[in-house]
Amino acid sequence: MAVYTDVSFEDLEVVLADYDIGEPRSFKGIAEGIENSNFYLQTDRGAYIVTLYEKRVRVADLPFFLTLMAHLATHGIACPLPVRSKSGAYWKELNNRPAAILTFLEGMSLRRPEASHCGSAGGALARLHAASAGFSLARANALGLEGWRKLAAATQAGADTIQSGLAVLIAETLDELASWPTGLPAGVIHADLFPDNVLFVEGKVSGLIDFYFACNDALAYDIAVMLNAWCFEQDGAFNITKGKSLLSAYRHQRELTREEVEALPLLARGAALRFLLTRLYDYLNPDKSAFVRPKDPRDYIRRLRFHRNVRSATEYGL
Amino acid sequence: MAVYTDVSFEDLEVVLADYDIGEPRSFKGIAEGIENSNFYLQTDRGAYIVTLYEKRVRVADLPFFLTLMAHLATHGIACPLPVRSKSGAYWKELNNRPAAILTFLEGMSLRRPEASHCGSAGGALARLHAASAGFSLARANALGLEGWRKLAAATQAGADTIQSGLAVLIAETLDELASWPTGLPAGVIHADLFPDNVLFVEGKVSGLIDFYFACNDALAYDIAVMLNAWCFEQDGAFNITKGKSLLSAYRHQRELTREEVEALPLLARGAALRFLLTRLYDYLNPDKSAFVRPKDPRDYIRRLRFHRNVRSATEYGL
Repeated sequence: MAVYTDVSFEDLEVVLADYDIGEPRSFKGIAEGIENSNFYLQTDRGAYIVTLYEKRVRVADLPFFLTLMAHLATHGIACPLPVRSKSGAYWKELNNRPAAILTFLEGMSLRRPEASHCGSAGGALARLHAASAGFSLARANALGLEGWRKLAAATQAGADTIQSGLAVLIAETLDELASWPTGLPAGVIHADLFPDNVLFVEGKVSGLIDFYFACNDALAYDIAVMLNAWCFEQDGAFNITKGKSLLSAYRHQRELTREEVEALPLLARGAALRFLLTRLYDYLNPDKSAFVRPKDPRDYIRRLRFHRNVRSATEYGL
Repeated sequence: MAVYTDVSFEDLEVVLADYDIGEPRSFKGIAEGIENSNFYLQTDRGAYIVTLYEKRVRVADLPFFLTLMAHLATHGIACPLPVRSKSGAYWKELNNRPAAILTFLEGMSLRRPEASHCGSAGGALARLHAASAGFSLARANALGLEGWRKLAAATQAGADTIQSGLAVLIAETLDELASWPTGLPAGVIHADLFPDNVLFVEGKVSGLIDFYFACNDALAYDIAVMLNAWCFEQDGAFNITKGKSLLSAYRHQRELTREEVEALPLLARGAALRFLLTRLYDYLNPDKSAFVRPKDPRDYIRRLRFHRNVRSATEYGL
């Protein structure tokens, strides 16, 4: 957790001349996000986040991410709203990085969400899916089946240094996922709605953040990501109470189709593989310039093994 | 710039139960300070900084630092005010570190202060010295002449790897400083009033922060630290306009004695040596667990060489 690109107040002042958001009162680098450099900016008119996009976010994807947030924010979703510059742009260059100013959201992310929080977050995901329905831009999921195959190839040689038998587990899972469901209800998904990216005030969701993996894919895959990220205990056990809470809150907003229910175990297996593979890759290829220690991929090995034994969505609490 | 010790919202909640500062609304690690871990906390009643003291700040010194800030804040100095817990304590334990909650100050530190800022900061230093007059606790300056001798010994072997002749320069300077002035007007000094530690709003000082080097010493030594930290250009040249602005603003609040004026060149040499030595030590002994790159000691070699050629305080703009 750190700031990768330093921004002085003097650098900021030059940028602020292009925005109509008032006079600066406070400006501090914040230790948030492993992809970007973020700064908390307070002006006499409000609070903002200044984000500098580091190498992992492609400039070509910024129109999708930023206009998506603008679309969602104007359709009732509490998410950061990119502020337009005086010339109408959503981003500009700052210290050789593309940079955007977004509204600041109140709320705290939870390290150990309880079942009620899983419900609140599940409901927020369904509202996000509904609100994104009218969004016109599209972005393919770079971390779908094809992306996993590439990551599997890139990590094959090192996988067993993490855990004996891991390369085989990944290869077998990829074979099983060859029957990846198509034709499920699709739209814009968040694709990374971990507890870090959901803010709460007094037990209720106050905001959703970090849309930099958002893409077009099966809506139920977003649920599968959340089952992985929200409903397992630290000891690796699946907490079906949390699963029930999350799923029923989601279904309260949007009922799942029979195909989605049937596909859920496979989608959950795919979601576990996706985070296993990216963590494994980062673990085997640590970025020496990064300030973060790579996340341990082993948590997702356990989740993947769990999902491989799931026979029906009832085991998730559906 | 980073957070060394992770604090979850759940950890924070336990601590907040002991304070009467309202309900949390936002909580973020901030990339500030190389000594401690800092978090921005917003509640429904105000904004605060939560500081966890890492190994460089000794627990035995906390009563001095925190009661000093409380004393200054209640004597008109815009500095963080430590908040007492319900049981009256200024700090408590959080994730195995001593931790304090302090009021948040508006303002931005400047990377390239201009002469007017040097004046504003010089005046703030004089007011700080006046306000600390009635403070009853005392703390010796661990980074005085004795401390420098220890650091010189610890860095002697490696010094010339930074710049040829550096070990001799340090040894000669220490010899010259054997005539270190005694009997100058003394009191509590900040001892580290660099531009990072002075906040500005619309060109005026809005706050002084980071009192974790504060100690009892000659007041004019604090001025000497500021001449080093505020009045040199990036190319290493001393900017006498900045020096004049800083010194005249200080003297507007407190006139210097003849002894202080005469001692200034030697005090400035000592201040340059102090920052040269600590930076050199950190450079030669990098902390692998730290998230910051050590500061380059060479800036202070140049400053020290400059001060060795200064014959009278007029050369600083006095």
